[in-house]
Amino acid sequence: MNLVLLFKNDFINDAGRIRLEGRRFKHMIEVHRVAIGDQLRVGLAGGLIGTGRVISLDDTSLEMDVSLIDTPPAALPVTLILALPRPKVLKRVLLSATAIGVKKIILLNSYRVEKSFWQSPVLHPESLQRQVVLGLEQSCDTIFPELFMKPLFKPFVEDELPVLIKNTLPLVAHPVAQETCPRDIRSPVTLAIGPEGGFIPYEIDKLISCGLKPVHLGERILHVEAAVPSLLARLF
Amino acid sequence: MNLVLLFKNDFINDAGRIRLEGRRFKHMIEVHRVAIGDQLRVGLAGGLIGTGRVISLDDTSLEMDVSLIDTPPAALPVTLILALPRPKVLKRVLLSATAIGVKKIILLNSYRVEKSFWQSPVLHPESLQRQVVLGLEQSCDTIFPELFMKPLFKPFVEDELPVLIKNTLPLVAHPVAQETCPRDIRSPVTLAIGPEGGFIPYEIDKLISCGLKPVHLGERILHVEAAVPSLLARLF
Repeated sequence: MNLVLLFKNDFINDAGRIRLEGRRFKHMIEVHRVAIGDQLRVGLAGGLIGTGRVISLDDTSLEMDVSLIDTPPAALPVTLILALPRPKVLKRVLLSATAIGVKKIILLNSYRVEKSFWQSPVLHPESLQRQVVLGLEQSCDTIFPELFMKPLFKPFVEDELPVLIKNTLPLVAHPVAQETCPRDIRSPVTLAIGPEGGFIPYEIDKLISCGLKPVHLGERILHVEAAVPSLLARLF
Repeated sequence: MNLVLLFKNDFINDAGRIRLEGRRFKHMIEVHRVAIGDQLRVGLAGGLIGTGRVISLDDTSLEMDVSLIDTPPAALPVTLILALPRPKVLKRVLLSATAIGVKKIILLNSYRVEKSFWQSPVLHPESLQRQVVLGLEQSCDTIFPELFMKPLFKPFVEDELPVLIKNTLPLVAHPVAQETCPRDIRSPVTLAIGPEGGFIPYEIDKLISCGLKPVHLGERILHVEAAVPSLLARLF
């Protein structure tokens, strides 16, 4: 937690006094070992970042006076389309992608996505929100990514993807592609990443005929936890 | 498992016949659903890669005839120095770094590394080997990385690091560095990455006075699982 993410209902007066209990309080006590007078980086969900000074603390809560003056870090201009990973992997990838600065994540079905993944409690809104909050706290950001579920591959690719990729560089990570992933793109990108085992040929063909360009990262096939940061670090 | 990693004692004759039981057999049956006649990518630990054709299978084992003809993918010319992460994170980072092609990994102590991490069973040689094998199987590689434990920061940095960084670009990832991490380096790099919370100022000063250049990846502070692939994808 490099930033304490605050929500409107943490505020107890109009002068910037907030009160925290629960997970954030516990983390600040146990990990940061805060004492009265300590200053920490804070940010308001959806808003500015700044500092908070600990004013009082007891066994279950603390209060801080916060001052919010800075803009959060810039977002990456990317829409990330991910074949839904297995639940444990999804949790980590959501955290990472959020920390790296992705603001639009589409979870897509694919032939090699197990049906049970769509039933996972990890997809419950509170669980998704938890991972996203951890990612924002990690990277000192306050702007939540938008998450979309697309459990039907074909209608998404045929009806929505053509609109989505307009005015972006549309790429699909594909280990057997001819071209390597470009570097240091300074304009918007739409990036699709397949499931373990990859998109099947039918899916790759659909994505290509929609306009996505297959690109690879070299001879090595990476798991999605490594592929997401690797591709994003290369692109931006 | 994009490649079945074989060891010398899997061979049951000199003509390239191998027999597998246990984890690899189970994975091939349950995940790849192999049948007699199927061809899979295989590689010999420390050696060539090629294909294996399933010749026979029963409830607990299978046999393949393998032909090893190709060289494994190129290694990254990097020495990765990692402040020892917490055990669960270490497992994932070892797998990722191996999959990405790192061949020399040094696990270093640092002020913010909890002492208990050095006692973790994850550091047992069999446990380390398991993660490395998973990384090689992921990325179709056969060449094991070398792993070194350096539980004393100062003697390592004073006595060993100056020799290690010779003829390399020596970098330390440091979120508050002045310069951004360079891109597309085609020569050897030594890359140090701190613990959660970062190297303390004393440690950063020691690393800098040894010749390491602090570099950052932008305003965002990444956790080590995302920082390792991000930095390596940017450098190479």
